[in-house]
Amino acid sequence: MDASNFGVTRITALSPTERLAALRARLAEAGVQGFIIPRSDEYLGEYVPPSGDRLAWLTGFTGSAGMAIVLPDRAAVFTDGRYTLQVREQTDPALWECRHITDEPASAWLKAHAQDLAIGYDPWLQSVPAIERLTVPGVHLVPLAANPLDAAWTDRPAPPMAQAVPHPLAHAGKSSTDKRADAAAALREAGEAAAVLADPHSAAWLLNIRGGDLAHTPLALGVALLHADARVELFMAPEKVGADTRVHLGNQVVVRPREELPRALDALRGKRVRIDGEATPAWFSHWLREAGAELSPGEDPCRLPRACKNATERDGARAAHRRDAAAMARFLCWFAAEAPKGGLTEMSAAAQLLAFRREVALFRGESFPAISGAGEHGAIVHYRVTPETDRRIAPDEVYLIDSGGQFLDGTTDITRTLWTGPGSAPAVIKDRVTRVLKGHVALATARFPAGVAGPHLDALARRPLWDAGLDFDHGTGHGVGSFLSVHEGPVAFSRAAKVVPLREGMILSDEPGFYAAGEYGIRLENLVLVVPAELPLANRPFLAFETLTLAPFDRALIDPELLTEAERGWLNAYHARVLAEVAPQVDAPTATWLRAACAPL
Amino acid sequence: MDASNFGVTRITALSPTERLAALRARLAEAGVQGFIIPRSDEYLGEYVPPSGDRLAWLTGFTGSAGMAIVLPDRAAVFTDGRYTLQVREQTDPALWECRHITDEPASAWLKAHAQDLAIGYDPWLQSVPAIERLTVPGVHLVPLAANPLDAAWTDRPAPPMAQAVPHPLAHAGKSSTDKRADAAAALREAGEAAAVLADPHSAAWLLNIRGGDLAHTPLALGVALLHADARVELFMAPEKVGADTRVHLGNQVVVRPREELPRALDALRGKRVRIDGEATPAWFSHWLREAGAELSPGEDPCRLPRACKNATERDGARAAHRRDAAAMARFLCWFAAEAPKGGLTEMSAAAQLLAFRREVALFRGESFPAISGAGEHGAIVHYRVTPETDRRIAPDEVYLIDSGGQFLDGTTDITRTLWTGPGSAPAVIKDRVTRVLKGHVALATARFPAGVAGPHLDALARRPLWDAGLDFDHGTGHGVGSFLSVHEGPVAFSRAAKVVPLREGMILSDEPGFYAAGEYGIRLENLVLVVPAELPLANRPFLAFETLTLAPFDRALIDPELLTEAERGWLNAYHARVLAEVAPQVDAPTATWLRAACAPL
Repeated sequence: MDASNFGVTRITALSPTERLAALRARLAEAGVQGFIIPRSDEYLGEYVPPSGDRLAWLTGFTGSAGMAIVLPDRAAVFTDGRYTLQVREQTDPALWECRHITDEPASAWLKAHAQDLAIGYDPWLQSVPAIERLTVPGVHLVPLAANPLDAAWTDRPAPPMAQAVPHPLAHAGKSSTDKRADAAAALREAGEAAAVLADPHSAAWLLNIRGGDLAHTPLALGVALLHADARVELFMAPEKVGADTRVHLGNQVVVRPREELPRALDALRGKRVRIDGEATPAWFSHWLREAGAELSPGEDPCRLPRACKNATERDGARAAHRRDAAAMARFLCWFAAEAPKGGLTEMSAAAQLLAFRREVALFRGESFPAISGAGEHGAIVHYRVTPETDRRIAPDEVYLIDSGGQFLDGTTDITRTLWTGPGSAPAVIKDRVTRVLKGHVALATARFPAGVAGPHLDALARRPLWDAGLDFDHGTGHGVGSFLSVHEGPVAFSRAAKVVPLREGMILSDEPGFYAAGEYGIRLENLVLVVPAELPLANRPFLAFETLTLAPFDRALIDPELLTEAERGWLNAYHARVLAEVAPQVDAPTATWLRAACAPL
Repeated sequence: MDASNFGVTRITALSPTERLAALRARLAEAGVQGFIIPRSDEYLGEYVPPSGDRLAWLTGFTGSAGMAIVLPDRAAVFTDGRYTLQVREQTDPALWECRHITDEPASAWLKAHAQDLAIGYDPWLQSVPAIERLTVPGVHLVPLAANPLDAAWTDRPAPPMAQAVPHPLAHAGKSSTDKRADAAAALREAGEAAAVLADPHSAAWLLNIRGGDLAHTPLALGVALLHADARVELFMAPEKVGADTRVHLGNQVVVRPREELPRALDALRGKRVRIDGEATPAWFSHWLREAGAELSPGEDPCRLPRACKNATERDGARAAHRRDAAAMARFLCWFAAEAPKGGLTEMSAAAQLLAFRREVALFRGESFPAISGAGEHGAIVHYRVTPETDRRIAPDEVYLIDSGGQFLDGTTDITRTLWTGPGSAPAVIKDRVTRVLKGHVALATARFPAGVAGPHLDALARRPLWDAGLDFDHGTGHGVGSFLSVHEGPVAFSRAAKVVPLREGMILSDEPGFYAAGEYGIRLENLVLVVPAELPLANRPFLAFETLTLAPFDRALIDPELLTEAERGWLNAYHARVLAEVAPQVDAPTATWLRAACAPL
């Protein structure tokens, strides 16, 4: 899927006016005239449980990215281009101004409307760099010890309390002891006594634990301190950690309630502590500095090793994709039969795909809510079908389905763009799909020396579109976790991503698209694994991509005349591989359909 | 040319041992035990006049990039991969360790060998970020008020004192008054009272002046302060600025001797002063901070406008390239006739090209020393032919010639790779040349939306090489000035370059290469101008490149079978354009040769 997710409308007994008034009433107590409410919770992640969705409670806006600022006499919600329509629909215009976060930055709005005011923020909900980006002359940003919104939010849901469970070595591939030894060695090398692991993905990876606190990522929410002697303090509600998990964690990992975090940081007085600015709530820096620790800015020591999947994780990813491919083939076969009849809807199609996935071994849930968009809905990059937006999938139109699964041995994410038939697709749509496919293939077949990073390869996937003056407004691909988040840093095929060289074992999506607003959307997505390239002439290490995802591209939308010989060769070889790997897993009718879908073009 | 230049051996009466001893003798007076000597002078530029080449005087190493560090009992010279051989030849191993600046960073060497020592540096010769990169625990870096090496350098040449002359509006295209008004408005917008223009290219561009202080860049060395009311203080030896130039500068530009710089900075007490960290000696930050000014980190306000050539400069660049093309055509025709006979040498060929260039209108000198490399010398990316290295250009080998001119209306830079004949080139060499050509064409024909930067396009030029496991170890292209430096920031086709979106009017080189060490070198370089792309389907601004350089690529080294139809079409159209634009300018025999050289492939 593309980099986003979807909010869910929360239930609250108060009206929007009451909620805003309740917050404003608490600001005076806190000694500030305004308050900043980001989307993120204290884990700064993409997904937020209902108990952490302060932005939705306050404003009604349920998008996956945004921020609100409340002043004495005005208030604004800032969102990006994906949500400009949604935010207007979900918020009360009498209460909230809606702003485009890039075109009308929050900092400029603060500068214009909050001169000489004290504006509070919750240092648990924003990183130091995020606060710096909001800093403007004449506006006093004040970290608050308690969140006034939380005080006002009387009907707040309880935080999730799913059990933390061991992630078996058979899937993790490397013991927590070994991971901790390596990460601790990196700290010692840097002269650091400890590192703050504020991102719960880091504790999950480092300790080989998973959980169920979020809908689509198997996380047990918690933060950790990694010490240079390889000990870990895990701050997580102790009742989430049962006896089996405690045995798994061993005696070098101590589970403490979150309330003990300040005392644990106080113990780092006089020591160098690594802290990853972008990934860590400002609270940690503030507290550590006051505690007399020396801050050592640096990357979360788990971030890069987590992205480089070990041999077990690679094999797991291959196996998960192979099994997931059976569900996809069944779905595509079913869709090809049903869609021309015009009886499907976006919701029914997504439900059918999920039903097929539920039959796959080791399936643990969707890795994100499927994007099931017919016609003009496909052009909404982050479309989420709801009962209100659900629409019939008509004959002879374009349908986009972006979905994925969490499997114990790996995480999948695939997008296919389908022609519903029974007629043939217009030439202009085939032109656009084929350009997107050419871009997909250009990236999938790239070979490049070590040192090259995602931002350097993004143009390969866009060039066939650029040649016609076309483009798409999202990154070409994101990193993917191993039974973790479907969106995982630090690498991405995106000009906006940091320059982090690609390394063996990383998994990314390759998903160029094209969107004709109001008409249709195209996206073609496979996951790829970074592997060594075997090139006899090379005098330095070269890397290449192994495609993990196995599903045919809809030939009804491809114009073979627009493909080069090499591109056609890739497509035919890929389809032959899909057929060979998937046909043995599926029923006879699906296998028959697959043979036709994978026939040489 | 590729991003580098060449030192020249300086004359000094002292032996290497004496010079090092003389420096060490001065360190105690300065209260330090060690000293850092970078290549750069106080202008932090690529080119250094003899009076500023402290590194060469001290160590004997004349490369264009490097650094020395002297400790009480050891000393090291740090260079990059281009100079590992040269530095060993030029320095005394009894005195100097030679280190690879990336593999064995100077900071690590300091950490290992300078614990608890006070190491001096001249804050005029290094930027704040450069000093930060050298900072390691346990080593005390001390800025010195006077440079102990200068005190020891008794036979130091006088600084260059060429006259600063007006750069006519007919070539500059925009008056200094207008440029200053725009730049000052940017300062006011940022709430800044002044900007330090430490890079002499900035004063040259802003004030429309040029000079002759350096060999290949028409600069009058000096620094400036731009004030928010558009006044400029230019710190430059007053005797370099004659009456005509003073009239040209007008009464809003005051020329002051450099000695008055401290007092001028003192006057900025309490004011916000923009300072471009990477481009400015640390001395400025130190002094301004002590003077009580508020430092405002930001880009030199002349840097981006200078890179975006105005309409007059674009037309000037086109005209300069058209005229320069006549010299290139005469050279290539002459070379094609002479080379197979085996009577040429690298020096005689370069001299002949320069002789042809001297006949071109508005020629003011080479924009860098020509790289004239036969056979294995062509594989040395920054080869500079000297009487000691000069070698015969043999029949049936590869010859690389990278050269350029400074013209009053523009700066040129072109590389061609030629087969000397009379036999035909081996298939493997044609394969490599054709891959380089494919990469050159891929970049030259790129169309891309506004926002894309040089690092994002670099891979386009490398892909045909990467496909075979091949690569080249330099950027694909650099920015080029307008009768200024042939290497101009802020843009470059390079993964190492900053992400600065390409803009209309920028001029860059497109120069992929391939180097077979010990055998031959290939580089194919044209300059390209960023222009708006006309793409009917585009719903946003797209950019493209207009090729400025006009000279045929050697068909003897191209395998047309390896070109796609589109590539062959580009090459034939380019050659037709070269013929049409250049043939009318040259003598009949050259025109005849050109017709054959430009015939369709």
